[in-house]
Amino acid sequence: MAILERCDTGGIARLTMNTPEKLNALSDEMLAALQEQIDALREDSSIKVVILSGTGKGFCAGHDIKQMTAGRAGEDGGKAYFQDLFARCTRVMTGLQSLPQPVIAQVHGIATAAGCQLVASCDLAVAAEGTRFGVNGVNIGLFCSTPMVALSRNIPRKQAFELLTTGEFIDAARAVELGLANRAVPLDQLESETAKLAETIAAKLGAAVKIGKQAFYEQLQMPLDQAYAYTSGVIVENLMYRDTIEGMAAFIEKRAPDWQE
Amino acid sequence: MAILERCDTGGIARLTMNTPEKLNALSDEMLAALQEQIDALREDSSIKVVILSGTGKGFCAGHDIKQMTAGRAGEDGGKAYFQDLFARCTRVMTGLQSLPQPVIAQVHGIATAAGCQLVASCDLAVAAEGTRFGVNGVNIGLFCSTPMVALSRNIPRKQAFELLTTGEFIDAARAVELGLANRAVPLDQLESETAKLAETIAAKLGAAVKIGKQAFYEQLQMPLDQAYAYTSGVIVENLMYRDTIEGMAAFIEKRAPDWQE
Amino acid sequence: MAILERCDTGGIARLTMNTPEKLNALSDEMLAALQEQIDALREDSSIKVVILSGTGKGFCAGHDIKQMTAGRAGEDGGKAYFQDLFARCTRVMTGLQSLPQPVIAQVHGIATAAGCQLVASCDLAVAAEGTRFGVNGVNIGLFCSTPMVALSRNIPRKQAFELLTTGEFIDAARAVELGLANRAVPLDQLESETAKLAETIAAKLGAAVKIGKQAFYEQLQMPLDQAYAYTSGVIVENLMYRDTIEGMAAFIEKRAPDWQE
Repeated sequence: MAILERCDTGGIARLTMNTPEKLNALSDEMLAALQEQIDALREDSSIKVVILSGTGKGFCAGHDIKQMTAGRAGEDGGKAYFQDLFARCTRVMTGLQSLPQPVIAQVHGIATAAGCQLVASCDLAVAAEGTRFGVNGVNIGLFCSTPMVALSRNIPRKQAFELLTTGEFIDAARAVELGLANRAVPLDQLESETAKLAETIAAKLGAAVKIGKQAFYEQLQMPLDQAYAYTSGVIVENLMYRDTIEGMAAFIEKRAPDWQE
Repeated sequence: MAILERCDTGGIARLTMNTPEKLNALSDEMLAALQEQIDALREDSSIKVVILSGTGKGFCAGHDIKQMTAGRAGEDGGKAYFQDLFARCTRVMTGLQSLPQPVIAQVHGIATAAGCQLVASCDLAVAAEGTRFGVNGVNIGLFCSTPMVALSRNIPRKQAFELLTTGEFIDAARAVELGLANRAVPLDQLESETAKLAETIAAKLGAAVKIGKQAFYEQLQMPLDQAYAYTSGVIVENLMYRDTIEGMAAFIEKRAPDWQE
Repeated sequence: MAILERCDTGGIARLTMNTPEKLNALSDEMLAALQEQIDALREDSSIKVVILSGTGKGFCAGHDIKQMTAGRAGEDGGKAYFQDLFARCTRVMTGLQSLPQPVIAQVHGIATAAGCQLVASCDLAVAAEGTRFGVNGVNIGLFCSTPMVALSRNIPRKQAFELLTTGEFIDAARAVELGLANRAVPLDQLESETAKLAETIAAKLGAAVKIGKQAFYEQLQMPLDQAYAYTSGVIVENLMYRDTIEGMAAFIEKRAPDWQE
């Protein structure tokens, strides 16, 4: 089995991180595999939704501390390697957001440090009850400075600050309360509930979801007037789609739309 | 009856959308009527608070899909009309925020698509239990790109993304939890509870509320240092008002203020 | 006793506002005393966490209205004095955030107007059940325009707007729900629970917490790409610390780190 499995069904691509012995750590190899799939998915119009999950005891435990420590062997103590590592990691995290398809994290066991960042970087997250979320690098003297970029754009700041400085964990229900996850479900329903959410979104007009997802993150970073000028252009473009014309006509005529997509 | 009724009592203007047969859709006519009232209210110093509500089964179901579809008849497939429509709609939405008076949405039944945007664009919202909120344009192939501007400035991003891509509804209690509404109340208390909130605010010094409301949205878009420099100027200006001098003196003397406003 | 007591134990500085007869109002003297301690703490590498609390019936009731009113005696009606006052107040509020050490507000009784701003400006807050939080200046005709800068960066906007325009209070449990506080605890456990949180953070590597706290607020104000470029530099710098190298090695070897800090 590959370290990152991909299985496509019904317009849904399921990516499964598969190094359970490392708790699916974001090693150089795992980052490269994720980047490869992100690049492939970006061009794959057959895929409408992506699910990201992990095998074994947990979703993802963050960076591969052993590999990072080995990286210190160079003359510069690993500095150039680390700079490159975090550039690659950032490319994966922001790549999930810039993918045209919505990405759902299917989370169980643990999601810590960069593993928690991975959850925060996905558009949506379904978590098994009992999952432990944390940005606990501070416990070993390494503040989760890059994970906090994603985390602090998901949850309120005092709660983010607490997690970052105490290294403590929260459970799935609390993650939902704070905004880090959308749903907490029993572990034995995790896969089916995530699939249900994915299927709901996959049944929509993909072109509309695609233009909408991109606009979502763009407009969040704009002042209000600029956000409206930008999204007005987006919705007018959306209105010109053949399938949107059909969708609106079908709505008026109280029938199912005949989409060609 | 007009399509938008206005009734003023005790410094409170109640605007009631009144095309129940269209679920108070934001037709060209409704947008024009709202804009006219916004322009009038902006200059009306007798009004201290505005309440926006709708007659019939729901608050507002968003744009008028039939009228929009008719707008496609032009040579350009409606593009110029849609551009103009969303410019007018944006002017109404941002006009509510830039009004000197606080605006309270009194919401019942449904608040969907641009109707949900209307709720998000008001400063405050009181919702009847049982109200269904959604940004469900995606169900007909039209992503709610403009509603999401207001929505994503009210609620956490993963929850906003879920509503936008699934087209699913949330109820009033959930809207309060997420930050889209301030209070959920039984339907038969909706009008009285909204009135109570309006009266509470109308009893304050209008000049202070006015300068404060404007500053609220301005400072939200600024970096911290700039926000403090700006609001420090605002509060010093507020301190120079005759009625604020009187209010502070009355507080020290433990008596009711004698406001001239 | 001084108006602002400082007591250091185990790397934790406890600042106690001590003008209970004024409900620890932010008088000229209190602001000066806070600024003096902030300046001292900034240079004090022996301190890893700061706790801010107040004696008497409440945490802090905001500005000293009597002193402000006396300040109106000048030819300009107090304008220059107020400008200076809010510049000094802003320096204290932003100083708490720019301190290298995390600052925990230990809140009881009341935290109103600039007292609520003080809570919002601390990195973390533990509140006693029964505490009343409010930005109630509007009740005397003075909108809490500067407190709202901090408040609106802690809690959702509709909830912030409601507090600012109604002048109403919320309790500690609601403050936690909204994001204004981290924990609500019984009054008789307030000091011990706050101490426990402080001790948890003080046990971490101070250099990591310091670089992380600064980065936290910096990156919050940046667009995503810039935030990642910046924090990637921060985490690489953190990785080069002697004690972080040791912390990661200890983690791999499953032993406690031998930190020299």
